[in-house]
Amino acid sequence: MGRFESRLAELGFQLPTAPAPVGAYLGAKASGGLLFVSGRVSALRGEVDTAVSVAEARLAARDTMLLLLAIAKQEIGTLDRIVSVEFVRGFVRSSPSFTEQPAVIDGASELLIGVLGELGRHARTATGAAQLPYGAAVQLDMILRIEP
Amino acid sequence: MGRFESRLAELGFQLPTAPAPVGAYLGAKASGGLLFVSGRVSALRGEVDTAVSVAEARLAARDTMLLLLAIAKQEIGTLDRIVSVEFVRGFVRSSPSFTEQPAVIDGASELLIGVLGELGRHARTATGAAQLPYGAAVQLDMILRIEP
Amino acid sequence: MGRFESRLAELGFQLPTAPAPVGAYLGAKASGGLLFVSGRVSALRGEVDTAVSVAEARLAARDTMLLLLAIAKQEIGTLDRIVSVEFVRGFVRSSPSFTEQPAVIDGASELLIGVLGELGRHARTATGAAQLPYGAAVQLDMILRIEP
Repeated sequence: MGRFESRLAELGFQLPTAPAPVGAYLGAKASGGLLFVSGRVSALRGEVDTAVSVAEARLAARDTMLLLLAIAKQEIGTLDRIVSVEFVRGFVRSSPSFTEQPAVIDGASELLIGVLGELGRHARTATGAAQLPYGAAVQLDMILRIEP
Repeated sequence: MGRFESRLAELGFQLPTAPAPVGAYLGAKASGGLLFVSGRVSALRGEVDTAVSVAEARLAARDTMLLLLAIAKQEIGTLDRIVSVEFVRGFVRSSPSFTEQPAVIDGASELLIGVLGELGRHARTATGAAQLPYGAAVQLDMILRIEP
Repeated sequence: MGRFESRLAELGFQLPTAPAPVGAYLGAKASGGLLFVSGRVSALRGEVDTAVSVAEARLAARDTMLLLLAIAKQEIGTLDRIVSVEFVRGFVRSSPSFTEQPAVIDGASELLIGVLGELGRHARTATGAAQLPYGAAVQLDMILRIEP
């Protein structure tokens, strides 16, 4: 087990089984030192603010980031090849009056910083969406820099 | 006609005339081995699930990808300079209960794989949007890796 | 004051104070010649077409781009290190019938071209969103190429 997976374990997490993409695309694509990780949705379904609380959605964002890390590992062999996290994009399925999308996506960002330390600090955009695939509460994708 | 355009023709497609951007931006921007292709919307208007069916939207996604390829060709001279498709982002104008955005964007992804083969396999995110420019059903942008 | 800031001043603008990110992320992340600038929302709140006009939202997009430039400068020291603007992504908080998102985001794109000239011309996607952080009218992020 590599350094970053050990750190995950210390924090009480483990990587889930990387789910296969549902559609005609790859889980992640490595290219020229970057790894583009495809968007994945949370297992948690429901609109945030009405069906789902901010606290629940935040945990769902954290768990979705674990999925993205599992997919990244599958593609590059070990998380220890991650040089840094460049950008995370998060969509939050939002009621018409819900405007705290950043608080939800912080669940994902804090996991990255906890596991990867300074390398895990990233640029980010958190946006509201009226609907997401499968009715999920959260959707995330990201761009990593990796060792060649 | 290059290799990838020949393959397009074999599949029964041809590149449309690359439309000029409607606004103060470029159709695509090449930089450091990457080509960022601007978002373009489908000619098909309407909300998916109410005004437009999934099957219709899927064809619209395919045709919008043909537009993006036409724009890419205009920028780089020939599709044969494409080294690989890194990332496709798709927005589907969705009714409040429509959650099959990936099935719609598959129309674009399958075209890329059909034309470019393994090079066409990409990371991707498919997201719902309550509204899109000009009331379109689908919007796509992408990042390609190209030969210098 | 550098060349691009002088040009800003000639146009009658000045960089605002770069606001700290509201959440567990960086204002921008530099990596391998690219600068990923995090999404920021406009100070202007409200849904475009109902609470806010297109003209107001367009000015808000321009002012949000000034914020992004201020954040970029904070990260890289001077705007003169910008080699080119690769991609701008804009979300416009839209009423169900509002479909002129590109006209709003033009406010940001035109500022970039005014200040940076040809280097400021970029690929772009303008999308509608039913809701944005803090109820803002506009949200923007971008990718710049910078001198090492």
